[in-house]
Amino acid sequence: MPPIKIISESITAPKGFQAAGVFCDVKRLGTGKGSDKGKKLDLALIVSVKPAAVAGMFTTNQICAAPVKVSIPRANQMRARAVVVNSGNANACTGERGLKDAREMAALTAKGLGVDENDVLVCSTGRIGLNLPMPNIRAGIRRSLAELSPSRDSAGHAAEAILTSDTVRKEYAVEFPLAGKTVRIGGIAKGAGMIAPGMSPNGKAPASLPLHATMLCFLTTDAAIKPSVLKKVLRESVARSFNRISIDGDMSTNDSVIILANGLAGNATIDRLDAPEGRLFQTALNQVTSELARMMVRDGEGVLRTVNVNVAGARSNAQAEAAARSISESQLVKTSWCGGDPNWGRIMAALGYSSAKVIEEKVDIGYSLPANQRIVYSLKRGKPTRVSFKTLCDLVVHPEFNLHIDLNLGQGAATLYSSDLTEAYVEFNKGDVSDPQSLGG
Amino acid sequence: MPPIKIISESITAPKGFQAAGVFCDVKRLGTGKGSDKGKKLDLALIVSVKPAAVAGMFTTNQICAAPVKVSIPRANQMRARAVVVNSGNANACTGERGLKDAREMAALTAKGLGVDENDVLVCSTGRIGLNLPMPNIRAGIRRSLAELSPSRDSAGHAAEAILTSDTVRKEYAVEFPLAGKTVRIGGIAKGAGMIAPGMSPNGKAPASLPLHATMLCFLTTDAAIKPSVLKKVLRESVARSFNRISIDGDMSTNDSVIILANGLAGNATIDRLDAPEGRLFQTALNQVTSELARMMVRDGEGVLRTVNVNVAGARSNAQAEAAARSISESQLVKTSWCGGDPNWGRIMAALGYSSAKVIEEKVDIGYSLPANQRIVYSLKRGKPTRVSFKTLCDLVVHPEFNLHIDLNLGQGAATLYSSDLTEAYVEFNKGDVSDPQSLGG
Repeated sequence: MPPIKIISESITAPKGFQAAGVFCDVKRLGTGKGSDKGKKLDLALIVSVKPAAVAGMFTTNQICAAPVKVSIPRANQMRARAVVVNSGNANACTGERGLKDAREMAALTAKGLGVDENDVLVCSTGRIGLNLPMPNIRAGIRRSLAELSPSRDSAGHAAEAILTSDTVRKEYAVEFPLAGKTVRIGGIAKGAGMIAPGMSPNGKAPASLPLHATMLCFLTTDAAIKPSVLKKVLRESVARSFNRISIDGDMSTNDSVIILANGLAGNATIDRLDAPEGRLFQTALNQVTSELARMMVRDGEGVLRTVNVNVAGARSNAQAEAAARSISESQLVKTSWCGGDPNWGRIMAALGYSSAKVIEEKVDIGYSLPANQRIVYSLKRGKPTRVSFKTLCDLVVHPEFNLHIDLNLGQGAATLYSSDLTEAYVEFNKGDVSDPQSLGG
Repeated sequence: MPPIKIISESITAPKGFQAAGVFCDVKRLGTGKGSDKGKKLDLALIVSVKPAAVAGMFTTNQICAAPVKVSIPRANQMRARAVVVNSGNANACTGERGLKDAREMAALTAKGLGVDENDVLVCSTGRIGLNLPMPNIRAGIRRSLAELSPSRDSAGHAAEAILTSDTVRKEYAVEFPLAGKTVRIGGIAKGAGMIAPGMSPNGKAPASLPLHATMLCFLTTDAAIKPSVLKKVLRESVARSFNRISIDGDMSTNDSVIILANGLAGNATIDRLDAPEGRLFQTALNQVTSELARMMVRDGEGVLRTVNVNVAGARSNAQAEAAARSISESQLVKTSWCGGDPNWGRIMAALGYSSAKVIEEKVDIGYSLPANQRIVYSLKRGKPTRVSFKTLCDLVVHPEFNLHIDLNLGQGAATLYSSDLTEAYVEFNKGDVSDPQSLGG
């Protein structure tokens, strides 16, 4: 397989994409309290200069935001042109007014671009239950249309404008040769709270999907790819990345991943997943989404440690995932990670109440570091090993480590990207009711 | 129905019961670090002076502790005489050695009492994965046998000896007339961490039970009741109390509820649940277990606020419970309670990802105080009411409040006893790895 090169770029890396990120005071930091924090960008626009194949994956939460309702049918079309996004307000649980506002965001953008309003998708993230401040949003859309550019800086502004409680921008891009042409994929994402996505193309939960971020991710590529193939590739990529992370186990009302593929790389259109070109594109997209997903976990609210939870030897892949999810969402396991405590008892308890079949006398529990794949076991076949508590603590104290569980019951395996639960998470999320604008989503 | 009177008593309130609680240094507070905290009692003994009908409910965690494995068959017998309990060490994930130790605890107790070892049940709570310090346990059992008494003080010592991270003893007792005789029920309990029980009589999870505390509860009564009826009454009581609380959503390896009924009240044996006497006994036991369950939630690790989550209007009782559990276990909802934030958006999100059917436009969300049943709604049929944010904050700031959800889709209803998630919970549970003895279960 040809090499996939990481490039220090973003969503404007692929040919024919433009972006903008502007301030329009949706987060209300420009007024009243918090104004000392500066004007945080809060409206982003991503545009393809020509019609692009489109695909999307959306929250399977039964309570889903107005922009999700508006964007699902548009992501199921063959083509689209742009995505407009605001942060600071989720436009969720806002009824008819919310739907009207979401449609107006898309319509204003479409008008400015001179395209059909159905070719513009819309996303929001922030506090639930407040109506969008439409005068601000309208001003923001006008400003973003004026600032649209293919520059690296503009992409960076878009990456910044979609953030809420995130502390850093999340951008990633790759380049690879595909049938004689050079193809690029770029992506930006936001995460931080309400992270435990479970997305599907139509917002309906398939049985195979975990039922569980506000997370948003926007992907661009200049590859030429058939829309139906793009939808399959995106679904597979999301299943292996965003649907495999868990920060707090709360699934948001707004999770959305949207990809635009405009074909300007000039490759022969990818029309099959099982052809070498299809597989290569899938591999490259998987790399982009996995890296963005891991950036999200590292930047999760109050996260001190990220833990890659690997479960093997389950009776099925679904059971492996259930076991990994039980560990990843256990408050007691997550607080032990916060303390750097290799507490295998809590892990055993979480395995025991998962829906996966577990036999105490068969369980192995070990740790490794990402840079050193040697696994140090604390438990083998249900019995503590001779490895000292100090040795285990020296592994678990790292900001990122791998947890390896082998149930020794079958061939099922799964990996989840998880994190610890810290005082800082609680401090952040309890908010300050004397300052409602400080309250999170 | 005759009045059920609360009496300022404990497990020695019913006729013919004796108790003891002693220090034998299982928690290792007498040695090394923590010795300044004093000698915490850590071994309890509860004895009926004559053979008693017995019933038990135990964790459905697939990883269950040695004492649970030993006690399940003994609770399924017709009669038993005593329960011996240690705190500070869970005797879980301890293999063959653990089973041998648990059996020895029962055998030593039985020998001291001059009864059959199969008539003694055994329970443990504390850190998982460590072998019991048997010399200490043996000394503790000898001491407890010597100190056995029917006094109120002895019951209090037993109530204290079963505690781990709890800050207060949990004791409750009632008295009521039953067919011309006076019957008493007494109970003690411990909770605090790993609280989300899901117990069944044989440790196997029935489909109708929630899959989710180390919690222990010991109940005594002088009622005469048929063992098979006692088992049914206990199952119903646990389903309505301990199986309805959630502090952290982690189900322990050691949860156990055990009741002994020795018949010394002299009532005509209760042999049917649907007779007035059966119903009265059930009502009285429900009161004891519910009050002990609520004491557990109030004394949960780091708990600042307790929240009674009422869900009504679900399509079934099971769906109501799923919705209530989703809210009760949502980290984001629990942190908002910690902040005194009536954040209905997070509640809607948690409802939306529960397995219960939810329609945004139908949901009502309201609050009330235990002492004032008037419900103040923040949301009606999916739309925010005119109630001010300040009014809602004034309700949610209380140490105990009721949350009322009406899904308006059917007749299903359920109540769960939940709590907030605080920095103190994280601080407590992350422990201090430089002092392994400080680490929790």
